[in-house]
Amino acid sequence: MSDADYNNFDKFEKKIPTGDDRERLVCGDCGFIHYQNPKIVVGLVPRFGDKILLCRRAINPRKGFWTIPAGFMENGETTGDGALREAWEEAGIKPQLGSLLAVYSITRISQVHIFYKATLDSDTVSPGPESLEVKLFNWEDIPWNDLAFPTVHWVLNHARQTWDEPTPAPFTEAPKDWDFHRWYGDPPPSK
Amino acid sequence: MSDADYNNFDKFEKKIPTGDDRERLVCGDCGFIHYQNPKIVVGLVPRFGDKILLCRRAINPRKGFWTIPAGFMENGETTGDGALREAWEEAGIKPQLGSLLAVYSITRISQVHIFYKATLDSDTVSPGPESLEVKLFNWEDIPWNDLAFPTVHWVLNHARQTWDEPTPAPFTEAPKDWDFHRWYGDPPPSK
Repeated sequence: MSDADYNNFDKFEKKIPTGDDRERLVCGDCGFIHYQNPKIVVGLVPRFGDKILLCRRAINPRKGFWTIPAGFMENGETTGDGALREAWEEAGIKPQLGSLLAVYSITRISQVHIFYKATLDSDTVSPGPESLEVKLFNWEDIPWNDLAFPTVHWVLNHARQTWDEPTPAPFTEAPKDWDFHRWYGDPPPSK
Repeated sequence: MSDADYNNFDKFEKKIPTGDDRERLVCGDCGFIHYQNPKIVVGLVPRFGDKILLCRRAINPRKGFWTIPAGFMENGETTGDGALREAWEEAGIKPQLGSLLAVYSITRISQVHIFYKATLDSDTVSPGPESLEVKLFNWEDIPWNDLAFPTVHWVLNHARQTWDEPTPAPFTEAPKDWDFHRWYGDPPPSK
């Protein structure tokens, strides 16, 4: 189910509130406006020497595919704390948080992915309930064809590009050579 | 009204969903989980030569106080597009978007403020309905005691610090000398 399912609540109706310029879900009884805004995903790229840690997802979407530790940011935490929380929950690691690496806007699904660099001083891992396995990969062994999401591709490459820069300017867009076509299929036929 | 007012809906109850580790608002009828996540505020620091543009707020919170163009990010837009939209809506400006300048987590209110640098090639402004006035300030004339929000202080100082760096590493925390006490009052007395 999605937020759109609020439509099922009898009292909500779509209308443009006074002073606004777009439709919102508004309660016809009390006037409560249910604003729907982008959600933040926080995560980190954990590096141990020359290796990068990835988790294989135990849950959908993209169960069985590989990802960095990441998940929805919770109320009351910072972006960095959220990334560290996810690293602990999904991989059982407590890395040292590095610099901000990427702030990607994924307009198609209204998410903003905020990713950090991170360094591990131990290769001990412990898959959480959302991970089938957790593994350290050399760069050339990363399962590129079995990564869970486009932004995992992007951020791994952006991490690699700035491997030795302590405070890179963060990336906000896909790498220039990114193959959108491969992920999102054929463009609609022209009329 | 706030999201917490969903509590008024009879069908919602607070409970920990299966596989989760914290309380959510869950519909007792259909199981719909109302996740509450941090909201993103996007904005920019518009610079015209040595001057900085600020808007005086026509709406609450902090009506009558000065701020940079900023507001809640909307679904379907990028952080940069959202910042440009706010600049147009609040100040009637179409600046050139610069580099990402700050990603501040405000845990107390569960917001993430994402701010960019921006440059203006014209000093023509036009206050929107949410602004009482829009004005360009020399640095020393900025109304420091009448700024609307802490992050406006932070980002102006961070902008100044990196005035001539095209791609600074963005800031994620308050300036070190920031006076939290002044904004948030006395700490609770010790027992």
